[in-house]
Amino acid sequence: MNNINLKRLALRLNLSVSTVSKAFHDNYDISPETKKRILKLAKQLNYQPNTFASNLRTQKSRTIAVVIPEITNNFFALAINGIESVAREKGYHVLIYLTHEDYANEVSFIQHLQSGRADGVIISLSDSARSVTHLNNLRNKDIPIVFFDRIYDGMKATKITTDDYESSYNATRYLIELGCSKIAHFYYSKDLSIVNNRMKGYLQALKDYKLTFQKRYLVGCSSNNHENYQLIKRHLTKANRPEAIFSSFENLAILCYQVCEELKLSIPGDVQIVSFSNLETAALLNPSLTTITQPAYEIGQKAALALFQALDKEGTGLSNEHIVIKSELIKRNSTTRLENPSFRKP
Amino acid sequence: MNNINLKRLALRLNLSVSTVSKAFHDNYDISPETKKRILKLAKQLNYQPNTFASNLRTQKSRTIAVVIPEITNNFFALAINGIESVAREKGYHVLIYLTHEDYANEVSFIQHLQSGRADGVIISLSDSARSVTHLNNLRNKDIPIVFFDRIYDGMKATKITTDDYESSYNATRYLIELGCSKIAHFYYSKDLSIVNNRMKGYLQALKDYKLTFQKRYLVGCSSNNHENYQLIKRHLTKANRPEAIFSSFENLAILCYQVCEELKLSIPGDVQIVSFSNLETAALLNPSLTTITQPAYEIGQKAALALFQALDKEGTGLSNEHIVIKSELIKRNSTTRLENPSFRKP
Repeated sequence: MNNINLKRLALRLNLSVSTVSKAFHDNYDISPETKKRILKLAKQLNYQPNTFASNLRTQKSRTIAVVIPEITNNFFALAINGIESVAREKGYHVLIYLTHEDYANEVSFIQHLQSGRADGVIISLSDSARSVTHLNNLRNKDIPIVFFDRIYDGMKATKITTDDYESSYNATRYLIELGCSKIAHFYYSKDLSIVNNRMKGYLQALKDYKLTFQKRYLVGCSSNNHENYQLIKRHLTKANRPEAIFSSFENLAILCYQVCEELKLSIPGDVQIVSFSNLETAALLNPSLTTITQPAYEIGQKAALALFQALDKEGTGLSNEHIVIKSELIKRNSTTRLENPSFRKP
Repeated sequence: MNNINLKRLALRLNLSVSTVSKAFHDNYDISPETKKRILKLAKQLNYQPNTFASNLRTQKSRTIAVVIPEITNNFFALAINGIESVAREKGYHVLIYLTHEDYANEVSFIQHLQSGRADGVIISLSDSARSVTHLNNLRNKDIPIVFFDRIYDGMKATKITTDDYESSYNATRYLIELGCSKIAHFYYSKDLSIVNNRMKGYLQALKDYKLTFQKRYLVGCSSNNHENYQLIKRHLTKANRPEAIFSSFENLAILCYQVCEELKLSIPGDVQIVSFSNLETAALLNPSLTTITQPAYEIGQKAALALFQALDKEGTGLSNEHIVIKSELIKRNSTTRLENPSFRKP
């Protein structure tokens, strides 16, 4: 339908093909007037330089890839908006890949990205990620990687996270100071560094307040929400039900609310709940949810800035910086001071 | 770092370059055994055919683009998951573009896509979309387009929506039958066909029940949530405050909840609320929100299937089908029968 190519453009403008080509490649070898003339006619004729041919010459895709576990999670949706805001300013497109927490998907995506689909990769690991050979292969092709949230410590790369350990410690201490001693921690995927750090913060707070750690209150969930619902239900029907739940992930907190509704348990009367969460409706829930709110948008922005920094200085060595942006504990009605606290400050 | 190319692979396998190349292009011209040998060595040496060179030959990117207004909206997040599930099965990657409701962004993305970045496009229009020249240009390059949710009626293409008119009619009728007569409709962007259809359904229900339409109850919002908050607040502090709000968009309903909290208005005592929404926490809100729940995931799936159908039959004419998938009115506690209804069935 559209047979305009560089040759025809050149013919109509009485210029050489190479001159016309320069107009599309930010080449300063031609005068601004000539460039303007070329672009004007190209626009009139609806001509677009062929990306494939053009990419082949420059070996740049002007695309960055973002590999994340899921998109129905508010943290990742906000982080993408942050990444996107930076990429657009740089004139880059963002290619989003969803792993659905599946390691095989992650490996397959990264293999594809090795062949030049994107100039750089921002990744938050899938919870089942085990080996990182695929990431090393990417690095061997000189495609920079930036990790955010679910990072891999063992690779030299910029990593952006929140203060997972401190946030967890503070949330647990807050529950203890409200009078709770039976505090359960719900998490999944112990292999992820953020999960590990959150767990450590929880355990350290118990220790500092001389509360005995009870294994039954450390509840490992799966990536299957139906299974998790049943698991949470079992824990909330036991005789030694926890007084408080500290959830590592938003969706586990939502499941807790659903289970409490089914079991007719009052939040916070029967069970208190605090969760890592970027839920927009946290304040509107019944009752409003106490959250550790992550700076998701800012984390995305910083990850993108770090990636563009790596792309700019190409080959001059990679940063190994770990940037930590603080989360905020927002106290709402899902937590309250116990009237007859089982725990009193030592 | 990695200098393996087709030539070296061929050399090591004692095969011609053209034979080796065939192994990477689903060419049935070589024996399965030879193909297996080639792919095995390629894997060992971590060789990936260069996408740009390969795309230049086949003129296929094996990528589909999804252009949507935003990602922090549950409808779009779920629709993307639906699109993604189909694309992955077909071995395609999904390139996601966020317009942030900005027409200039939409035009810029579509211009980029004209040059072959994607084989096809699935789009939900930005609310400020005016001219569709950019979409026509895309079509002139034989890149198929499928519309979903926010469609453009004037173009021959497959369109997937929910039953916006009927769903709105039913929701309005439901509020009327609960005893409400002062029903406000909150919407934005009258230019979008779905907004128009929803408004028509609302107006028709009023008409069928012989309720006089009052202009002040038709409230046009903007894409700025701070402005919308103030606008909603003004409407809920007026003497002739509506008895019920029927919201065309999820985020407007969330703002209504926030305003009611600030004004100490009871939902549904002072104001009843029903909204188009795919909010995961709708049932957990205080009070739980009555929703028109769209089949978002299914809409995404159908859009992707339609696009691949268009890609498969390349050039044999384009479908102009309008697929409508029904939404569901889920009644919850934000709506209730009025004790002293201002309206009784005629």
